[in-house]
Formats: sequence, structure tokens, C-alpha cells
Amino acid sequence: MFQPLYVIKIGGNVIDNPDACSRFLTDFAKLPGTKILVHGGGKIATQVAARLQVETQMVDGRRITDKPMLDVVTMVYGGLVNKNLVGGLQSLGCNAIGLTGADGGIIRSVKRPVKAIDYGFVGDIEEVNDIQILALLNSSLTPVIAPLTYSVEGLLLNTNADTIASAIAIAMAKHFNVNLIYCFEKKGVLSDPDNDDAVISSLVPATYAEYKASGVINKGMIPKLDNAFSALKEGVDKVTICHADDLGKATAGEAGTVISLI
Amino acid sequence: MFQPLYVIKIGGNVIDNPDACSRFLTDFAKLPGTKILVHGGGKIATQVAARLQVETQMVDGRRITDKPMLDVVTMVYGGLVNKNLVGGLQSLGCNAIGLTGADGGIIRSVKRPVKAIDYGFVGDIEEVNDIQILALLNSSLTPVIAPLTYSVEGLLLNTNADTIASAIAIAMAKHFNVNLIYCFEKKGVLSDPDNDDAVISSLVPATYAEYKASGVINKGMIPKLDNAFSALKEGVDKVTICHADDLGKATAGEAGTVISLI
Repeated sequence: MFQPLYVIKIGGNVIDNPDACSRFLTDFAKLPGTKILVHGGGKIATQVAARLQVETQMVDGRRITDKPMLDVVTMVYGGLVNKNLVGGLQSLGCNAIGLTGADGGIIRSVKRPVKAIDYGFVGDIEEVNDIQILALLNSSLTPVIAPLTYSVEGLLLNTNADTIASAIAIAMAKHFNVNLIYCFEKKGVLSDPDNDDAVISSLVPATYAEYKASGVINKGMIPKLDNAFSALKEGVDKVTICHADDLGKATAGEAGTVISLI
Repeated sequence: MFQPLYVIKIGGNVIDNPDACSRFLTDFAKLPGTKILVHGGGKIATQVAARLQVETQMVDGRRITDKPMLDVVTMVYGGLVNKNLVGGLQSLGCNAIGLTGADGGIIRSVKRPVKAIDYGFVGDIEEVNDIQILALLNSSLTPVIAPLTYSVEGLLLNTNADTIASAIAIAMAKHFNVNLIYCFEKKGVLSDPDNDDAVISSLVPATYAEYKASGVINKGMIPKLDNAFSALKEGVDKVTICHADDLGKATAGEAGTVISLI
């Protein structure tokens, strides 16, 4: 029987809201046991880019990362956001250590090949170094991971935070009973986008397929849920999608959408 | 008999020069054994601040760090500079991990009290967590430390990189024979500022006092040398000041200025 490990992903909308972020960090710091935080970027990168006159190009909701934009996300995700989360957690008694995929070589990726679209300096994950992450956890550290990975050539690469969270959850399932929780600004996966309380309490592959076919589950939620199901198939114990304010309830199984295979 | 540990500080002028920085990283990666890199900031913070219309205020060569400037240095030192050094070292086979003082709680400081000058968010070091740093070194990691520390309140604080290097060297002297090396853009401490080859090969307190009295050793070098002598008094084995290109020679005692107590 493995020990439990929480892998918790916090989205950009929470990071952009100082009060919501502060509440989340308080709850996260209180969570007992072994845990990893993965954070998204938020709008700060776009704002800093605008002030630096670096143009933000988006295709299908994904950022095109040219070299000036890579520098911006390295500054904002790897520096400003990551270090402020770490400082906040340290003040709450949580021994956080802020990392990108390059640090300790924990997440190696490959620069996305150019097909119809050139996404630029964007990484597709190749390998998570579970042994190195385990060594950090065994030193009583709480990794706080920014959405940046690295290539063998030493390039930093912008990488989707949801994908990082599920890749880490999968890799650590060799050592722990992993509970993967995606925290965002909604109470879970909704059956009615106009009703914030219409939370689908559980999803299995069959119901997911139905909701997708009927259009209830929309574009933005699909990659998140695909990540969730693939994590379960590869050994993750439990996946929950919930509001950042409901972390405590979600770990007790009392909030959010619980995703399972059966 | 302790094992050797190199604590190597690289200055902003080296970071600002991509070729010099690349040469240095190649030599640093080759250096066998246990090592820590501490880096300064360089001019990039000032350039990014200017582009973000954040005013740079300097008093006696020291940056005044108001909140907008703290955000800039957190982005540039903790993000852009630190992560690019880590990525570069990873590609050279050195398992680097980029850290600020907040990460793992390795360097706690106190916000400098306001006296004649309010330096803003600047930290005076209170404690180096040698046990946490030792745990990272024992995991075969090479810490790469940005010039930022943190307070118990969770504030990030801008902190002089020379001081961080000497504080770490002193703290780790409990566990290692520490060799502290300051790398910069000159070949060592010069007896003639107009002759780059006029390197003072060794300095002891008496000769240092003479050079200061005669004005040969100037303002910018004094805090560096004061740090060096205080490190030796507190248990550091050896301190060298050398050109970033001479790291290999300096570790063999064949370049730079060697500082000793006797």
C-alpha cells in the first residue's frame, strides 16, 4: 500500500486574483502529507508582454511562444508567479521549493515539431524524472512547479500546466497513491454553463462521451478531461476538478467533479 | 577531513555577455565534485525596468528596490537569468537546480531597517539553512542561487550576491572544506586600475589595509574583500577573486588573487 500524494493544479484565474490566491495557499499549506503544486500562468504574462511591447499571438486558445515571448513567460511564470507562491507558502509554514522542468532535470520535453502551426518555444513532455522528484519529497520539500520544461539542448520551453500536472501525477503513481486535483474558478464540470451550481458530481468515460456529443462539455474543458482520463488509465488513483476555494472539501470527496474509469 | 565544496559567484558583467557566460558555464560544468553557483543580476534588470517604465534609483551603487522594482528583479534574477543558467548547465550534463533564498527556505533575511536611506525591499541575511542545502547536494544537485532572499512574512527581498556567496560559504563550512571563488570581468584585485595584468596574487589583512590606505583598492572592491575576509574568519578554507575565464586555473591556484588570513 503506497502513501498518498496530492498533485494539485491551480489555474491562471486564481493566480490573477490576489484574495482567491491567498485563500487557496492557506488551504494548500494546511493540507497534511506529501503534496506538489503545479501552477498556470495567468494574465500577468500577457500584461507584462504588452508593457514590453511583445505581441501576444494566440491560436485556438494557445499562446504562440516566439523568443521574446519565451523570455516573458520565463520571467513571469518561472520568476514572478512561482517565487511569490513560494514566499507565500513559506510564510504559512509550508517548505515550498519553486521549480521549472529544467531544475533538477525534472521534466524534459521536446520542442513541438512545426506542422500546420509553428507554436514556437513550446514543449511536448518526453520524460518526468520521478526519482529526482521523490528525492525532493523525501527531503520534506513541497515542489511548486511553473509551466516551463526544458529540452536536452538546454532550451526552456513553455508547457501547458494541465499537461504537466497529469504527467507528474502519472510518473509519481509508481511511488504513491496519487490524488490529482485541478482547481479553477468554477465548482466543477458544469451541466449548464449559465448555472454555476450545476456541478456534474461524477464522470466516467461513457457519460463524458455523452456530454461531449450533446455539446454540454465545451472546448476548453475537453483537454482538461482528456488529461484526467489518461492519468487514470496510467495509474493515478483519483482525479477531481473543483473550485480553488473548495480544496479542503474536494480532498474529502465533498466537492467538485470526481472523474473515474468505472 | 571534510570533502571539498566550491561556492562560486559569477558577476553581472559575465551574465550580460553571452559568450563569456557560455564559456564560464562550460568550465563550471566540468569542475568535478560538489559545487554551488551564486549569480548576480547584471544590466538586464535595469533594461527590463526601463522598458516597463519602472524607474531605477541607485544610491552609492546600490539599487533602491521599491515594489515595482522588486517585481522586476524577481522576474529577471529569479526567472530569466536563473532559469537560463539552469537550462545551459543541464545541457552540459550538470544537474543544476535554480533557487532563490525562499526555495526550501535556504536563506532567510530581514527587510533592511530604514535609517538615512530607505533601500526598500532589500534583505539583510539572518540565517542560511545549511541542512537543507546539504540535502540538495546529497541528492547530486548543483544549486544555482539568484540574489533574492525571503523574510518570515513571506516577502521576497533583493539581496547582494557577494554577500549571499559568503554567507553560504560560511554556513557550509560546517560540512565541507569550502573554496569560495568570486568570478568577474578582471583577472583579480589589481594594483593598477589601468593595467589589467597587474594582479595582486595574494592579500592578507595587513597588505589589504595598506592598499586601502593608499587608495589602490577602490570603493567597489572593498565590500567584496570585506566579505572575503569575514568568510575566512568564519571557517571558509580559501577565497579567490579571478576572471570568469580563469575558473579552471583558479581552482588549481594558478590565477586570480588568493585571499588568506596569514
